[in-house]
Amino acid sequence: MAIPHARSGQVIDVRPHGATFTDERSVALFKTEDLEVIRLVLPAGRALPPHAVAGEITIQCIEGRIDVTIGGESNHLAAGQLIYLARDVLHGVAALEDASVLVTIALRR
Amino acid sequence: MAIPHARSGQVIDVRPHGATFTDERSVALFKTEDLEVIRLVLPAGRALPPHAVAGEITIQCIEGRIDVTIGGESNHLAAGQLIYLARDVLHGVAALEDASVLVTIALRR
Repeated sequence: MAIPHARSGQVIDVRPHGATFTDERSVALFKTEDLEVIRLVLPAGRALPPHAVAGEITIQCIEGRIDVTIGGESNHLAAGQLIYLARDVLHGVAALEDASVLVTIALRR
Repeated sequence: MAIPHARSGQVIDVRPHGATFTDERSVALFKTEDLEVIRLVLPAGRALPPHAVAGEITIQCIEGRIDVTIGGESNHLAAGQLIYLARDVLHGVAALEDASVLVTIALRR
């Protein structure tokens, strides 16, 4: 998937998809020198297997509910909650309900 | 204001303040090596004068409506919209309604 470069001052919609949820898919919103922002769309039951990111991240639940597992420990996030993860932390993400998720990555330079 | 260091795996609530809005104030949610996340609480009419940040940022409207002015150009954001700003871009933020705002800064190393 090609990742667009953000124009500074660009307004980006991250409202809940709501009724259109099933038609939506994950998108890389933008990637710049220092930041990458991705919106994940995870139907209920969908999971990303444990993985690590070479940068500090926040994972923000935009709609639905997700479980972020870290070292076998569950962290449930509802819409409007976010979690911070240090660089290289192994984590999994599972949708407890249809969920969309904003992931912000501080890119390692 | 002291800025807490985030514990990796920390869940942070950024839901709209709603009925408790008037009792809330801006807080630095956390600051790490690469990321700083701040929640601004801006009553209607409150404005931050034009300023620049030495890092790339996203400004996400969590509740209410804000105007982000860049070079004299208005950008209206409703709850659920975010804007990306390059490093050192002069910008102002004004609350068109009672608003709270999540600011994520990629810290320059």
